[in-house]
Amino acid sequence: MPLSANNPDRKSWLHVDKNSDFPIQNIPFGVFLTRDDIVTIGTRIGDTAIDLGALHQLGYFSGIPLTDDIFLQDTLNDFIADGRKTWRSVRNRIAEIFDSNNKTLKENKSHKEIVLFRLDEIEMQLPVQIGDYTDFYSSIEHATNVGSMFRGPENALLPNWLHLPIAYHGRSSSIIPSGIPVHRPQGQTLPNGAELPVFGPSELVDFELEMAFITTVANDLGEPIPVNEVEEYIFGLVLLNDWSARDIQKWEYVPLGPFLAKNFASSISPWIVTLDALEPYRVESPKPIKPQLEYLQYKGKKSYDINLEVAIRPSGAKETVVSKSNFKYMYWNMSQQLAHHTINGCPVNSGDMMGSGTISGPTPDSYGSLLELTWKGEKPLKMKDGSERTFINDNDTVIMRGFCEKDGTRIGFGEVSTKLLPVFKRK
Amino acid sequence: MPLSANNPDRKSWLHVDKNSDFPIQNIPFGVFLTRDDIVTIGTRIGDTAIDLGALHQLGYFSGIPLTDDIFLQDTLNDFIADGRKTWRSVRNRIAEIFDSNNKTLKENKSHKEIVLFRLDEIEMQLPVQIGDYTDFYSSIEHATNVGSMFRGPENALLPNWLHLPIAYHGRSSSIIPSGIPVHRPQGQTLPNGAELPVFGPSELVDFELEMAFITTVANDLGEPIPVNEVEEYIFGLVLLNDWSARDIQKWEYVPLGPFLAKNFASSISPWIVTLDALEPYRVESPKPIKPQLEYLQYKGKKSYDINLEVAIRPSGAKETVVSKSNFKYMYWNMSQQLAHHTINGCPVNSGDMMGSGTISGPTPDSYGSLLELTWKGEKPLKMKDGSERTFINDNDTVIMRGFCEKDGTRIGFGEVSTKLLPVFKRK
Repeated sequence: MPLSANNPDRKSWLHVDKNSDFPIQNIPFGVFLTRDDIVTIGTRIGDTAIDLGALHQLGYFSGIPLTDDIFLQDTLNDFIADGRKTWRSVRNRIAEIFDSNNKTLKENKSHKEIVLFRLDEIEMQLPVQIGDYTDFYSSIEHATNVGSMFRGPENALLPNWLHLPIAYHGRSSSIIPSGIPVHRPQGQTLPNGAELPVFGPSELVDFELEMAFITTVANDLGEPIPVNEVEEYIFGLVLLNDWSARDIQKWEYVPLGPFLAKNFASSISPWIVTLDALEPYRVESPKPIKPQLEYLQYKGKKSYDINLEVAIRPSGAKETVVSKSNFKYMYWNMSQQLAHHTINGCPVNSGDMMGSGTISGPTPDSYGSLLELTWKGEKPLKMKDGSERTFINDNDTVIMRGFCEKDGTRIGFGEVSTKLLPVFKRK
Repeated sequence: MPLSANNPDRKSWLHVDKNSDFPIQNIPFGVFLTRDDIVTIGTRIGDTAIDLGALHQLGYFSGIPLTDDIFLQDTLNDFIADGRKTWRSVRNRIAEIFDSNNKTLKENKSHKEIVLFRLDEIEMQLPVQIGDYTDFYSSIEHATNVGSMFRGPENALLPNWLHLPIAYHGRSSSIIPSGIPVHRPQGQTLPNGAELPVFGPSELVDFELEMAFITTVANDLGEPIPVNEVEEYIFGLVLLNDWSARDIQKWEYVPLGPFLAKNFASSISPWIVTLDALEPYRVESPKPIKPQLEYLQYKGKKSYDINLEVAIRPSGAKETVVSKSNFKYMYWNMSQQLAHHTINGCPVNSGDMMGSGTISGPTPDSYGSLLELTWKGEKPLKMKDGSERTFINDNDTVIMRGFCEKDGTRIGFGEVSTKLLPVFKRK
């Protein structure tokens, strides 16, 4: 199945701004509520949202084997379960429908009225029902920074880190789409020098700059996925802000890992950009520092050149960009992550989400968390409004963005933007 | 709403063996495949399975607000989401229908043919679609045993353990009902004294004797559940075998906790015994050793006296009981666990599952894992067939059972029975 949707020379009859993340070469998938309060699966070109449920009902996907209600759903899980051949066919067809040379929909006013929406007419939803959420820890810079802070630079990386992509399970129920605010979590912390823990609001709320991939049904219980077959099972990627409460984390995480420090919220961007759309941006992963076991040895380029940035917008003020990083810094790539995750036979389903872990780059301005950017709060960051940040303040909004760019084509993820509200009060 | 279903004097017109786990006072809920390959929600009295979907269609639940298809589903999630008042009404009605003094169904042969099944005519399924699975670590004996092995008896309990119910997130996709076999997992381990990890089958496959509770929709994002309200949101309990690969665990678990060592499989008993049915067996939890923060302080008896046992059945031989424990040993009870889990605002949904952690008792024959029973493999267990076990052999079946008994009434969980197959081979 050719990736004709990726044709860089194609233009759309829909308007696309020069710096848009969503040219006709992107064609991401998402779920939105329309002006008529109907939930549908859709895509986006420029600033126009496209109702795929309506397009399908009008016959625009004829010839592609799809059930009648595949896009009239409140999650993408069933569509993702249809597999890569179907995703490609649908994406190629969408590219044809909106090609500037195709007049079928372009000149059908009544169809366009049903199918097209302005962004201010829709409300983006969580794109998938996430069955299981796994979060990796695959940036060597991040692991080294955090390890240095807590164990000193000579013991920064633990002995297992260079041999396997460390991961833990996260909480699916608190994954939210961009735009949903989050309350500052409360919990137990052990103040410095104290003997007994205290209860109260976390004082060290942090973001973690991550990306996450969404899978399709991949394997049965017991059956590993070979490393070079993994990409068959990856539908696409989103931006992920893995909210973290550092003071809660420090007290709770030994010996079973982070729990309440993480599961109060994880925010994702609402448009899933397909792995197919990212094809032109493949790059090599960092060279392994130590030999890797055979089940982790892959062929070819398995990473992607995705520019990432984080901004903080204080209440009523302009945003300040506080970090610029790149997905390509990841020491362990997605193929290795999923091969490792399933080597013991753990089953992977449609709509599972796998976070990268915080993506820090090699320089201090590319670190992916405030913990690292402010070095445990020792070096506050200056905001444009003159204020300083060591961790996130009440009513700050954290915004993450990501895009690829090459030969004049830009494929982006839009943003994940989340406001931190004060502690929840019972009415 | 009175718990009339718990009336200890009630007899059923269905036959119930004297030592059955399923007298008319139990009325658990499960999902099964019938002889006609139809999935339905059902209950069980003695050795008779009862199709609640058929009973409902025949009008036996008239007067209780239930949707027409509430029992014609392949999971209990929607029924559980209906809330405690509905569960109680349905359970009370089932007790009336099968009361020995009630002739309505008893004397309706055509209805009985549709509604009643022998156990060998049905196949039990996973009772819920588990959205999120959390595993606690709430037995002080287990935490002390494991801590003593790895850090010495003086440092057995970590500083946080007596202050909060430690927990981590598990994997939902590999939760399976009793009867589904599991392959021995493969993975990375670091042999004693080696510098580099090796790949191969786990040599230290273990069970963990646990129970787990299933929740209903409890809270919105951001909103904690007060400790004394938690039981409103617990539907019922199952037995849980939290399979563990100790050699994989030891190498991978620092710093983010167990991952592949656990997520290859977790087995549960298929009948959910309601918290209501366990009401007569309430007991006090162990006295706190250290003061607990206010959000963890509860009123009344929040634990349950549930006898537990584990047996190993070697291939072709008789089983040997290797442990007898009790749910009441749990230092942290379910009310504290869920209050803690949500204190940061983490949302809990219908069908979420919360494991207790390994339930070890105070004596060596009550330990809940082979790691403890054989003290890291140093003290092998004798099987009835003359063989010895330090960890689980290929083709061994591990069986866990649990029941309450008081004043002549026994409420049980049946069993969770799982065979360990050799390593998976690709065809």
